[in-house]
Amino acid sequence: MIIDCDPGHDDALALLLAVGDPRARLLGVTTVAGNQTLDKTTRNAQRVLALAGARHIPVAAGCDRPLVGELTVAEDIHGATGLDGPDLDVPVADVADVHAVELMRRLITGAAEPVTVVALGPLTNVALLLRRHPEVTPGIRRIVLMGGSTERGNTTPYGEFNIVTDPEAADIVLRSGVPATMIGLNVTHQALATGEVIAEFRGLGTRLGGVCAELMTYFAAAYHRAFGFEHPPVHDPIAVARVLDPSIVRTVTAPVAVELAGTYTRGATVVDLHRRTGRPSTVDVAVGLDVDAFWRLLMTAVANLGR
Amino acid sequence: MIIDCDPGHDDALALLLAVGDPRARLLGVTTVAGNQTLDKTTRNAQRVLALAGARHIPVAAGCDRPLVGELTVAEDIHGATGLDGPDLDVPVADVADVHAVELMRRLITGAAEPVTVVALGPLTNVALLLRRHPEVTPGIRRIVLMGGSTERGNTTPYGEFNIVTDPEAADIVLRSGVPATMIGLNVTHQALATGEVIAEFRGLGTRLGGVCAELMTYFAAAYHRAFGFEHPPVHDPIAVARVLDPSIVRTVTAPVAVELAGTYTRGATVVDLHRRTGRPSTVDVAVGLDVDAFWRLLMTAVANLGR
Amino acid sequence: MIIDCDPGHDDALALLLAVGDPRARLLGVTTVAGNQTLDKTTRNAQRVLALAGARHIPVAAGCDRPLVGELTVAEDIHGATGLDGPDLDVPVADVADVHAVELMRRLITGAAEPVTVVALGPLTNVALLLRRHPEVTPGIRRIVLMGGSTERGNTTPYGEFNIVTDPEAADIVLRSGVPATMIGLNVTHQALATGEVIAEFRGLGTRLGGVCAELMTYFAAAYHRAFGFEHPPVHDPIAVARVLDPSIVRTVTAPVAVELAGTYTRGATVVDLHRRTGRPSTVDVAVGLDVDAFWRLLMTAVANLGR
Amino acid sequence: MIIDCDPGHDDALALLLAVGDPRARLLGVTTVAGNQTLDKTTRNAQRVLALAGARHIPVAAGCDRPLVGELTVAEDIHGATGLDGPDLDVPVADVADVHAVELMRRLITGAAEPVTVVALGPLTNVALLLRRHPEVTPGIRRIVLMGGSTERGNTTPYGEFNIVTDPEAADIVLRSGVPATMIGLNVTHQALATGEVIAEFRGLGTRLGGVCAELMTYFAAAYHRAFGFEHPPVHDPIAVARVLDPSIVRTVTAPVAVELAGTYTRGATVVDLHRRTGRPSTVDVAVGLDVDAFWRLLMTAVANLGR
Repeated sequence: MIIDCDPGHDDALALLLAVGDPRARLLGVTTVAGNQTLDKTTRNAQRVLALAGARHIPVAAGCDRPLVGELTVAEDIHGATGLDGPDLDVPVADVADVHAVELMRRLITGAAEPVTVVALGPLTNVALLLRRHPEVTPGIRRIVLMGGSTERGNTTPYGEFNIVTDPEAADIVLRSGVPATMIGLNVTHQALATGEVIAEFRGLGTRLGGVCAELMTYFAAAYHRAFGFEHPPVHDPIAVARVLDPSIVRTVTAPVAVELAGTYTRGATVVDLHRRTGRPSTVDVAVGLDVDAFWRLLMTAVANLGR
Repeated sequence: MIIDCDPGHDDALALLLAVGDPRARLLGVTTVAGNQTLDKTTRNAQRVLALAGARHIPVAAGCDRPLVGELTVAEDIHGATGLDGPDLDVPVADVADVHAVELMRRLITGAAEPVTVVALGPLTNVALLLRRHPEVTPGIRRIVLMGGSTERGNTTPYGEFNIVTDPEAADIVLRSGVPATMIGLNVTHQALATGEVIAEFRGLGTRLGGVCAELMTYFAAAYHRAFGFEHPPVHDPIAVARVLDPSIVRTVTAPVAVELAGTYTRGATVVDLHRRTGRPSTVDVAVGLDVDAFWRLLMTAVANLGR
Repeated sequence: MIIDCDPGHDDALALLLAVGDPRARLLGVTTVAGNQTLDKTTRNAQRVLALAGARHIPVAAGCDRPLVGELTVAEDIHGATGLDGPDLDVPVADVADVHAVELMRRLITGAAEPVTVVALGPLTNVALLLRRHPEVTPGIRRIVLMGGSTERGNTTPYGEFNIVTDPEAADIVLRSGVPATMIGLNVTHQALATGEVIAEFRGLGTRLGGVCAELMTYFAAAYHRAFGFEHPPVHDPIAVARVLDPSIVRTVTAPVAVELAGTYTRGATVVDLHRRTGRPSTVDVAVGLDVDAFWRLLMTAVANLGR
Repeated sequence: MIIDCDPGHDDALALLLAVGDPRARLLGVTTVAGNQTLDKTTRNAQRVLALAGARHIPVAAGCDRPLVGELTVAEDIHGATGLDGPDLDVPVADVADVHAVELMRRLITGAAEPVTVVALGPLTNVALLLRRHPEVTPGIRRIVLMGGSTERGNTTPYGEFNIVTDPEAADIVLRSGVPATMIGLNVTHQALATGEVIAEFRGLGTRLGGVCAELMTYFAAAYHRAFGFEHPPVHDPIAVARVLDPSIVRTVTAPVAVELAGTYTRGATVVDLHRRTGRPSTVDVAVGLDVDAFWRLLMTAVANLGR
């Protein structure tokens, strides 16, 4: 598995899950501008891997802006560093000397079997990989992305942050013909970091557990301020969970179109669940979550990491 | 109250509610193309009023097509007549010799106090009234419309039939400054005509109760075919119920924009529930329904009508 | 002929042409918001008719805003009154006690033969007529409109003022099936009020000639300021000229679509001169002008009026 | 100079100009899908260079489709091979073993001074270079592109083929901040390959002159069929000519936006010549051509090549 991400509080948990779960084999991490600027999301990825004792996993920085349009970061949700809350001071490994797109290409080309790409931020890097190196697509088993929604969005009424940030990249990925699974807000809003979840993280008694608790405490306050949520949704780890244990996320195959025009709806993922449009069904769309199994998986992974 | 409608199975129940409820004072009924062509929706309105013993209520036909774009009727849901199912053979009163817009104008101008306009179809007639006779707007207390959604649509993934049929008309109405209440699918999909509901209609022992049961039986089969719904949602009477007893429908005031562009989202009602867009809040948007009280209100009204 | 207009300097000349030419039979004048607000365009129409000795021609005010969107007047071109420049103080006839749409309906219904509607402003009134009174369309011989362009626009790079102001109205008119002739900027920019033209107006020795000269002098300065034009184009009278003497304007039949979406191109008239789109050809589009014959016609009409 | 192209009849003349003019220093040629599929445009580039005795100039193939949307080739204009007409059988050099984007990157990075990129096809490769390797932009002196129009288009009424094929790529390039010169149809339609031009090519007495004559003969027939043009416009060499002798093409600096939405206008280059929109002026837009000087330059270059 390769993870392309923009940490980000929930991205951080996703990385921990991908490092700590015994079934996971994380080949590399690539970063993209999104929740914060590229330099911040890259440093955050390095820090999370270092905290998890996974400094050997290569990290490469990718695109610092969307294909089309300007970058608007989610500082109201993730803070000035992109990972506000805990003290994350830890010695980190050097970032790889290649672009994210090139690292993905090398990892895919060099792997013995097809690789799953887990995309947790705007899809800029992944889209660029597909357009610049179309020859690698047979080496991609599937793209599992956190983004979009079958229902309402968060950045706009019908638009989710990752897709709204780079709708053209999402369009490229979802039309590419590479098998894709979309984990949207309709499902991630079921995975709420309640007080019990935070207490359980803290109860692990490790530094890492404490960091997770502090991340979620900050995240909870931000979500409460911005959306009035009582508990914050933990989006990104669900995409990793889907890869590790498909039974945790129920999906249906449906036509998905990304709205590229629209005065108020640019970046909406238009999912035709009832097959009314006659467009071909090409994407596995998450529609259900085994909430308990998800938290068990995540908590166990963080516990496994110790530290 | 004036009802502008395109009957339609659920419009029929809305008309019965507005005739049968003791608090209701139905001044007139105007018709528009939508669920079926104008001649059919007009004839259906006449028949429903006749069945309800309300042939004295004037009916005027209005626009036979949307302001912009072409008409696509909902024959898959409402059948070839627009009111398929029961035998509706009944002598009807003549249709008024004026256009729907003119009847609305006269009824509003002639009323002793401001009038509520309940719009149950595409908003073509109401938009035309506002543009052609802006001087009547002080005489409109409020426009209560069934249409749109804060969540998913029915005609397209994010578009509800009435709004998708004439998005420009909806934009005119919702931006007009006239107080408006939007009853969308997010609420109407809670009012399902279950087997118990149908049995209760039949149990009234009147011809009208039987007609309601047959309408809902047809409607159930259509919704099952088109959307896989177990029970059909009864949209339109909820707008009338809101007028008769506001406590039945909970609303919030929020910014609502109608998407007029968009490759896949034209006609979506973009409701900014979390006030993220900074646009002014202008519409009361239904977000909750007292399902039991609604059915009690409707059933009582049909029972009151006897016949 | 009925003229629907928003005077406006060039509208004023169009009215004079329609009153002064011996072949013209001007049944009525209706006004719309556009170059200035409705009250100003209406007063201007009354004044021009009074100056021309045609106070018997009925004037009715219509829509004070476009169907969709907000009104932006062209004060930079036509000044604060909409007809800045000359002294236009003259006793005027009362405005008709009916809406522009109703006056058009009555004049069309009452005429012995089909009537030509000459539309010189945003098409709001005409669109409303077609949607509110579709039964009158057989009584309309043709709609000859000044608006749009086969080339560049003036309000935006590809959008002309009348169409940009109310694109939905233009779409309604051009798709209505009523025969239509579009006189766009590609032709009207050939009719320039040069110094010789202005001198010729003044040389008529009448008050009316002097008013025309002063109108064009003001117009020239405005066009020079806004667009750097050496001489101002006289758009609207060309539409009237086309009706009086079709040989003055050469047309081709072509598909015309109005762009209703578009981030930068809303209101563009997309004229498929080379028939590359496969859409049906429905509009007669002006592509050539006999400049000398046009000025001769206009000058003769103003001379005929004397005064 | 690097040329990115999709030959194409007029691209072929552009390559000959860039090889045959004594001032030109052509570092490499990259190809893109556009006038024909990538394999055909690549082979055509190799053939033209071979015919010109310039097999040493590296050729690299790039993107086989636009960033967003599907490829539609211009077979009606350039034929099944993309370069129909003459016999082009000639031994060609191998294509470079790197992607077009990588060849551009290497040539720019390796050059002693900033390089001009001349883009004659859809801007897919150039956009990908800017997004994938933003660090090279200081090494690009200017991007001179043939594409767009200040007036009408050719593929759609307001859309020119290169921009319509990949509007997002054009948007990326024109917003990138790299100095750009746009040579649009408004200018290229002045450079017509008349019978005299074709005779002059033939009169050179070389194989190359004969090939040019045959290319233009085919092109003339295609343009006559598709657009009714008496003589075909020779678009692409004007961009090269602008680089070799700026005095040949007159430009103004103006705001240019690419329409990415729009039902009928997607891909239009919206050039605000009169500065009415208040957007910043960022692009040098061609508005005039010294037709005689252009043909002299091109004819001399082909003559220089002999062969």
